[in-house]
Amino acid sequence: MAAGSLATRLRERLRGGPPLVGTFVKLPALESVDLVRSLGFDLAVVDGEHSQLDEGAILSLLRHGAALDLPMLVRTSTRDAGSLNRMIEAGAAGIQLSTLRACAERDALVSATRYAPDGTRSVSLAHPAADYSGIPLAQYLERSKEFPLLVGQIETASTIDPLPEILRGLDAAFIGTTDLSVDLGRPGMLDDARVTGRVSEIATAASSAGVALGAWVASADALAKLGDARFRYVLVGSDLQALRAGLSMVASAARKALA
Amino acid sequence: MAAGSLATRLRERLRGGPPLVGTFVKLPALESVDLVRSLGFDLAVVDGEHSQLDEGAILSLLRHGAALDLPMLVRTSTRDAGSLNRMIEAGAAGIQLSTLRACAERDALVSATRYAPDGTRSVSLAHPAADYSGIPLAQYLERSKEFPLLVGQIETASTIDPLPEILRGLDAAFIGTTDLSVDLGRPGMLDDARVTGRVSEIATAASSAGVALGAWVASADALAKLGDARFRYVLVGSDLQALRAGLSMVASAARKALA
Amino acid sequence: MAAGSLATRLRERLRGGPPLVGTFVKLPALESVDLVRSLGFDLAVVDGEHSQLDEGAILSLLRHGAALDLPMLVRTSTRDAGSLNRMIEAGAAGIQLSTLRACAERDALVSATRYAPDGTRSVSLAHPAADYSGIPLAQYLERSKEFPLLVGQIETASTIDPLPEILRGLDAAFIGTTDLSVDLGRPGMLDDARVTGRVSEIATAASSAGVALGAWVASADALAKLGDARFRYVLVGSDLQALRAGLSMVASAARKALA
Amino acid sequence: MAAGSLATRLRERLRGGPPLVGTFVKLPALESVDLVRSLGFDLAVVDGEHSQLDEGAILSLLRHGAALDLPMLVRTSTRDAGSLNRMIEAGAAGIQLSTLRACAERDALVSATRYAPDGTRSVSLAHPAADYSGIPLAQYLERSKEFPLLVGQIETASTIDPLPEILRGLDAAFIGTTDLSVDLGRPGMLDDARVTGRVSEIATAASSAGVALGAWVASADALAKLGDARFRYVLVGSDLQALRAGLSMVASAARKALA
Amino acid sequence: MAAGSLATRLRERLRGGPPLVGTFVKLPALESVDLVRSLGFDLAVVDGEHSQLDEGAILSLLRHGAALDLPMLVRTSTRDAGSLNRMIEAGAAGIQLSTLRACAERDALVSATRYAPDGTRSVSLAHPAADYSGIPLAQYLERSKEFPLLVGQIETASTIDPLPEILRGLDAAFIGTTDLSVDLGRPGMLDDARVTGRVSEIATAASSAGVALGAWVASADALAKLGDARFRYVLVGSDLQALRAGLSMVASAARKALA
Amino acid sequence: MAAGSLATRLRERLRGGPPLVGTFVKLPALESVDLVRSLGFDLAVVDGEHSQLDEGAILSLLRHGAALDLPMLVRTSTRDAGSLNRMIEAGAAGIQLSTLRACAERDALVSATRYAPDGTRSVSLAHPAADYSGIPLAQYLERSKEFPLLVGQIETASTIDPLPEILRGLDAAFIGTTDLSVDLGRPGMLDDARVTGRVSEIATAASSAGVALGAWVASADALAKLGDARFRYVLVGSDLQALRAGLSMVASAARKALA
Repeated sequence: MAAGSLATRLRERLRGGPPLVGTFVKLPALESVDLVRSLGFDLAVVDGEHSQLDEGAILSLLRHGAALDLPMLVRTSTRDAGSLNRMIEAGAAGIQLSTLRACAERDALVSATRYAPDGTRSVSLAHPAADYSGIPLAQYLERSKEFPLLVGQIETASTIDPLPEILRGLDAAFIGTTDLSVDLGRPGMLDDARVTGRVSEIATAASSAGVALGAWVASADALAKLGDARFRYVLVGSDLQALRAGLSMVASAARKALA
Repeated sequence: MAAGSLATRLRERLRGGPPLVGTFVKLPALESVDLVRSLGFDLAVVDGEHSQLDEGAILSLLRHGAALDLPMLVRTSTRDAGSLNRMIEAGAAGIQLSTLRACAERDALVSATRYAPDGTRSVSLAHPAADYSGIPLAQYLERSKEFPLLVGQIETASTIDPLPEILRGLDAAFIGTTDLSVDLGRPGMLDDARVTGRVSEIATAASSAGVALGAWVASADALAKLGDARFRYVLVGSDLQALRAGLSMVASAARKALA
Repeated sequence: MAAGSLATRLRERLRGGPPLVGTFVKLPALESVDLVRSLGFDLAVVDGEHSQLDEGAILSLLRHGAALDLPMLVRTSTRDAGSLNRMIEAGAAGIQLSTLRACAERDALVSATRYAPDGTRSVSLAHPAADYSGIPLAQYLERSKEFPLLVGQIETASTIDPLPEILRGLDAAFIGTTDLSVDLGRPGMLDDARVTGRVSEIATAASSAGVALGAWVASADALAKLGDARFRYVLVGSDLQALRAGLSMVASAARKALA
Repeated sequence: MAAGSLATRLRERLRGGPPLVGTFVKLPALESVDLVRSLGFDLAVVDGEHSQLDEGAILSLLRHGAALDLPMLVRTSTRDAGSLNRMIEAGAAGIQLSTLRACAERDALVSATRYAPDGTRSVSLAHPAADYSGIPLAQYLERSKEFPLLVGQIETASTIDPLPEILRGLDAAFIGTTDLSVDLGRPGMLDDARVTGRVSEIATAASSAGVALGAWVASADALAKLGDARFRYVLVGSDLQALRAGLSMVASAARKALA
Repeated sequence: MAAGSLATRLRERLRGGPPLVGTFVKLPALESVDLVRSLGFDLAVVDGEHSQLDEGAILSLLRHGAALDLPMLVRTSTRDAGSLNRMIEAGAAGIQLSTLRACAERDALVSATRYAPDGTRSVSLAHPAADYSGIPLAQYLERSKEFPLLVGQIETASTIDPLPEILRGLDAAFIGTTDLSVDLGRPGMLDDARVTGRVSEIATAASSAGVALGAWVASADALAKLGDARFRYVLVGSDLQALRAGLSMVASAARKALA
Repeated sequence: MAAGSLATRLRERLRGGPPLVGTFVKLPALESVDLVRSLGFDLAVVDGEHSQLDEGAILSLLRHGAALDLPMLVRTSTRDAGSLNRMIEAGAAGIQLSTLRACAERDALVSATRYAPDGTRSVSLAHPAADYSGIPLAQYLERSKEFPLLVGQIETASTIDPLPEILRGLDAAFIGTTDLSVDLGRPGMLDDARVTGRVSEIATAASSAGVALGAWVASADALAKLGDARFRYVLVGSDLQALRAGLSMVASAARKALA
């Protein structure tokens, strides 16, 4: 399935039905993408911000996800339109932009990811979603109209513009809980009132802007701490964190069995 | 610490004290080596046989382990002396040769991994263990006398030569439990009498040859099934398997938390 | 679809119906695999013999083909069981062994690619076709019984053992026309009697051994030269050759248009 | 020949004589550069904008072109002076900047690619064009005065500053026909009056600014559609497009031959 | 030792004691890092500005240095906070920013490399310095307070803001002697009065801002030319330059011996 | 110049004129090849035996050397015909086989590197020396008749067959001095009578077999120790060793200058 269709399908699932579960992919290993898909995650987000993945590794993971029909977004802090375009051409179903704080940043994101007249993304057919020019240009443009998903990561105590305005036109607001808690002076204290208060503000803003709400938590049991926000999707941990947890259990169990 | 010292230290720990715990590294990610070391595994074995690691990835993992002072072996099916030498020069503390069945194979392994007059390994100082020729040749040869560890993987229902003879001169006999169970016609049935019987034979042979006994198990609780063999070390699962287990728990917990 | 299913499906299509068309993949570019699939080739063969693909590139191409449900074989001259196994674990639907000349070589190929009791292939679940151990061992072994496809490349004027005996137990006999013509002292002269005579012998042997017949030709019009052999599949050219042809046309047309 | 000489030679050929023919290189394969050179293209442009080439692949292709004495430019959307410098140090004979719309952008490009006092490019001798410091600094600076070629890609319906002013100081104006047609609301309709009108405007501006005119067309026959503009060079298609065309012909011809 | 400790230790050594010696690493080879450490350099600087190292190579070199407990900085011209963060997470003990000319640039550097409330660096535990989340968030933040080292490269004839103000809050001022001499119109003439005068100004400014002074020289004997500035550390040449010198000596000596 | 011509030219220079000087390339860096060529070495040998170069790196270095018209051999211990062929197709001007001890090994080398009827090398036009099939097959075969150079490395105290017989049909006998001295029980003692005696034997055998004589020495002054053998070429040190020497000088000089 082309990346465009993956985006459309994911967008629909964000609008209704049971909330979705995903995780971050930080390891430079296609095995990780294989496993995320095989284990039934609804989506995955390649982490271009906090990982040792270089551009080649990011593109490679995105291509593999697209080949497997797994909806994959990419989380990035880059505002470079060229970089964003290469990731979308690789097969990213969406872009999750970190630390969104202003309408101008949102506008730049929309502009960089939509073709004229809706934006300024440069057009090419030299990638899988256009079947490497197997699809006529006009048809490709038509089918690309609502692609890709755009997610704004909200992770600061305050923003430059009002939250509901910043979020308008995006597909989802994503709460970067770690950075948010640090910025609020409550590192990792997700059930602190300052944190839950801010989470609630973001949830309200997302609702008023008509966009889905998502968040990252280190583990599923941390979800409850965030208050009664209604998440349309959550990202839980990462492949790297899962690897640590899995290896840690192996080590303990082995020590016990051999004692 | 140089790879030679890592081998010496590991050899000593195989001779006495509490049994050691290791795991297989199959992911092309230095993060995996970092975690194995940080979580207190006594050793790790880069899997050159059942993984998607090419030679470059294998060498890179071995170099990282050596840089971190983590004793790493490499499991390989290759009998090519050139390949074995490159892995040792990269920093492998030992070689674990799969499917050892004959004295001639053991002899070839010894020959390929020992310098003259003990073997035919080609000499070079162009690698970290010789400080890139910072160490005089004669001194380097002296310190390399007992390096690296040699492990023979026993995983067939029968061998060409008698087991105790095959094992002589090695550091350890390692039971490849999966292949062994398949070869015995009892795939994965580790507590089947055929399997435990063969395990017992191998243990006896290892003891009589004066070499340490090791084995792989998918999980620590499988150890008990193998009978009363006294293992000096076990490899439990792999990073890839731990990643699967970790991601699987994340997915279940998240579904439950969101339900 | 798992590589095993791809092999099964391809085997069935080799038995009857219209003859299949494939090509060699020699470029280190996933784009090539994407295009081969999109343009409707029935199969592709990653060229591990005549290309600049190292092992990492070969495995990467095979994984991509498997992810896209494109049946991909790998052509290799290696007799190393470890290498063959890694390529199958990567997702190769089959192995095409170059320069097959003896029953012993065929036996070694079968042994290296079949699990006990049919062969000596080492078992692991740490790859996609076993869902990274998501499938129980016994079930995985069952479903792997006839996997992968085995193709013997016949490209010498004579063989050590009689052709029909060499081919028995394989899925296909593949005529390496270039090497064959050189070995017959008629380089590239496919319609020379020596060449067509030998082609005919191979075709007869394939028929008597009950295996499919395939061949490589540089271009489709060369097929006719090979005589009246009935091919179940042909490999035509390669991505590299297609790239050359395409670029050559571009250059000529542009010169003409600008003149 | 050093990259500087390649730039000088190419600049001269852009000034007079028969128009030049090039193509885009988008595949991560040195084979593509080999073929472009062997088939007589006058230049090639590594596509850093619409391809899956990461920085390492781009630099690698540029180095190979320089080693082969093939003049290679790089097309990029980056305005990052560090990136531009690394590409020039790799051996790029020129920079083709996408979507040029303002004099300030042109000034930044010039500044980033010229040493003081003409610009702010950071100086280093640690690259082939300076023979890795085999050439004295002053001499290297002297010979670098007019290097590299600078090409501004014009592909919008309008620009911020007047076209002739934007182009001044560059070597060539390059028409990005696809983006231009999309921005004009006539996707792919190169013979539409809006497109040909704009092409004519750009040609006039180039002429008045004294810079060469170039353009991309998907195929040579599209050239005629663009009106009577006098191109000093054209880029036709790409290696990826040629690969598609070549494979497509192979597939059709094979089906026909086997029918 | 964690990268944080490496930074702390290096910072202390910059404050007093004998001046430190380092060099640039430009080769994509872990061997280079091994040698720099083995030969007793106090630090090394991975050159992200003048080399053919792509991001993956830079991260790989930094990780290797951190694994070996060698303090490594990275020299870069990037102002992209995401890139800077990935390099620090890889294990860079410090950032050396090229062409610093204004307080705003310094502020951006500080902001990008310090966590809230001191800056805006995005927090993650998914890297070695945080033991991949083995360290609690609050503790990690505490230990990261003064990490990494920040070095401003001064290499222009003049700056936008006064030098002492620009340098405040950094750890060191580093004189980019080549670019500085070119910008002063005295390429490579380090003992020219214009150059020594500017060096003296920078030294005075560094002293008044309370930051260490460093510089690059192509060879140790060039140090004397720079006047009487008191350097706390110098970077001499690079691995690439050392390779050239070493090979050049080999070639001459061999010609002589064979003559 | 095609690799074939490089081989021919090198072969001629081995026959007469001043002796040639080369070195080993062990670093995974094209910079090393650039420098070796720029500094006037007559040839270089990519070290596939004692280095951390994987196959991809080896091929990449060979391709770069061929692109630059630098005659490059590859030193390898592999007897695998497929590997040898890929290295020749990459552009190796010759193969230097380590530890040659028997006529059968020599025959296998000749067979693997010569096309029928002189050998069994598999034919392909899909590489630069055949212009990717731009050259007709028969013409390519004709021009490949004496290509590539074949060098046998003699480095043992004794051989299975008599030396003069082993060397017949090769282009050169190369003395692996380090391994030879170790095998003779005189590690590194090049002027020991056992070593010089054996060197003399090899020289005599080379002369009687009509092949050129070459050797490796760590540094040029060691040449004299080897006695009065007449070398047609020597390999001195390696890039890695030169890097070490260069860095070592930098460190000492800097310490002195700062003291």
